Amino acid sequence: MRVVPRTPLEDYNLLRRTFGRDVKGSANLALIGDSFRGSLAFLSALNREPLISQVAGKTYFAFSDGAKLSRAVNAALFSDDIAQWTAFEKAINRRNSRQGLKGFNANRLTRLIYSVAISFCCYIDLIHKGDQKTPGTFFEFLISHLFAWRLDVNPVKSIQVLNLDMETYLPTDFIFDLGKERPKFHLPVKTSTRERVIQVWAHQRVLDGVFGTARFLGTPVILTETKTDSVRKIVTEICLPAQWRIYQMHIAQLKRIYYLDMPAAYEKLNRVFPPLHIRPFGEFFFEAEALSV
Amino acid sequence: MRVVPRTPLEDYNLLRRTFGRDVKGSANLALIGDSFRGSLAFLSALNREPLISQVAGKTYFAFSDGAKLSRAVNAALFSDDIAQWTAFEKAINRRNSRQGLKGFNANRLTRLIYSVAISFCCYIDLIHKGDQKTPGTFFEFLISHLFAWRLDVNPVKSIQVLNLDMETYLPTDFIFDLGKERPKFHLPVKTSTRERVIQVWAHQRVLDGVFGTARFLGTPVILTETKTDSVRKIVTEICLPAQWRIYQMHIAQLKRIYYLDMPAAYEKLNRVFPPLHIRPFGEFFFEAEALSV
Repeated sequence: MRVVPRTPLEDYNLLRRTFGRDVKGSANLALIGDSFRGSLAFLSALNREPLISQVAGKTYFAFSDGAKLSRAVNAALFSDDIAQWTAFEKAINRRNSRQGLKGFNANRLTRLIYSVAISFCCYIDLIHKGDQKTPGTFFEFLISHLFAWRLDVNPVKSIQVLNLDMETYLPTDFIFDLGKERPKFHLPVKTSTRERVIQVWAHQRVLDGVFGTARFLGTPVILTETKTDSVRKIVTEICLPAQWRIYQMHIAQLKRIYYLDMPAAYEKLNRVFPPLHIRPFGEFFFEAEALSV
Repeated sequence: MRVVPRTPLEDYNLLRRTFGRDVKGSANLALIGDSFRGSLAFLSALNREPLISQVAGKTYFAFSDGAKLSRAVNAALFSDDIAQWTAFEKAINRRNSRQGLKGFNANRLTRLIYSVAISFCCYIDLIHKGDQKTPGTFFEFLISHLFAWRLDVNPVKSIQVLNLDMETYLPTDFIFDLGKERPKFHLPVKTSTRERVIQVWAHQRVLDGVFGTARFLGTPVILTETKTDSVRKIVTEICLPAQWRIYQMHIAQLKRIYYLDMPAAYEKLNRVFPPLHIRPFGEFFFEAEALSV
């Protein structure tokens, strides 16, 4: 038994060293859980400062530590109920749980995973002002672990290209290979995208071009598209739905775009023709088989 | 006559306010010249600290101001001879000079434009540590002005898409429209690219998809791909030639990629099949017509 618990940053540094040994393994889940507990403990001592939300139907606050302010937190999605995590760990460790996390539905999973991600991000915002890399890497650990657990296969981050006289390794986002004559998942993970999102479609285009259309299912997972003006304390969502439609028509086809905090402007793209399929990330756990056939 | 000359940063701020009025106009050239003179004057008082170059055949130094160090400067390309600029301004203002800048060749132009860009970048490195945006925007002013002057047309930065029931404006890099049944140039401008370069091919793909292949000539202009380890004072070039070939085969075709400080690893791509056409930027001034037919 540990005498002094690790801080969430120490959990993160341990993840950095050990994560790749077995991405889907339970050791990673345990470390993610530790960091969630530690982040909640850190945040519980702080004030929740209301922000002015310019996002219709959503309420945001920030954790404040004196003059320092965290990023925006969606009040309806965030829960500091650690019992949710304990139940999740228990459900995951149950036999055959991959096809149905007992007691969980998509909404409950989306809220829990959002809370794990955003609590660590806010903790880092307050202890390392301006550090975007640590929250981004933690979010990659969280999502790629859950994806790997759900698909029961570990990812790779580069792929061999053999093309006539060319032979090279192409660095990629996470690739999950389900085996011969089954789909491969192409998983980019971003805390937010803005105008950089075109990279996701471009990488999908390269995979389609090199290996053939529809062999890789592009399923990016994004945390949020909020932007906070920390002086005026105003939260907005930066969305480019018309551009997304053009990318989907002219660069490549993404199979799903998953969000933890789904922007309303993108949610609407599910209901225009041709649709983009934009879903809360919790739904992935219940549709992974349906995507794979 | 001005009593107190503006600082290069004041020249830049004036450019920000007035640049768009007439991108190709001589007022912009004059302000760029003022900032070059001011940057050279600022740098002339500083030490040139040799860097350890891990780039074969290239020597780099940095300007140092006490403990502060500028970005790497290619010693063979940099010249603080302001007479070069004076001659350039004179050549530009000569009648019919667009088809032949008298007394200038591609190498001399590449060195001069490199010197204008890098001297302003080093000035900002030393007065605003960590500011990447100001050098990037200045470089956009410099290159888009010269491009506009050479093509004798001002650029736009967004383009209307009409596609069945869709109607939207797509934000773009600089687009130069030479008119009906003539090419349009698509000009991305970057101080360096690294892994973000895939965006350039992706934007070209969108233009090809929306308007038809080969209607837009993609001609990005890039300053350098050097990276400096400021503690160990080592300069390297970050190049991904195998990936560039895959992008050119599978995303879209770029017509030219121009560099001010051309990386050797990319220069070689001119001589493999299928080639990528990677040239020193000075060559653009002599091949603009050949590209346009």
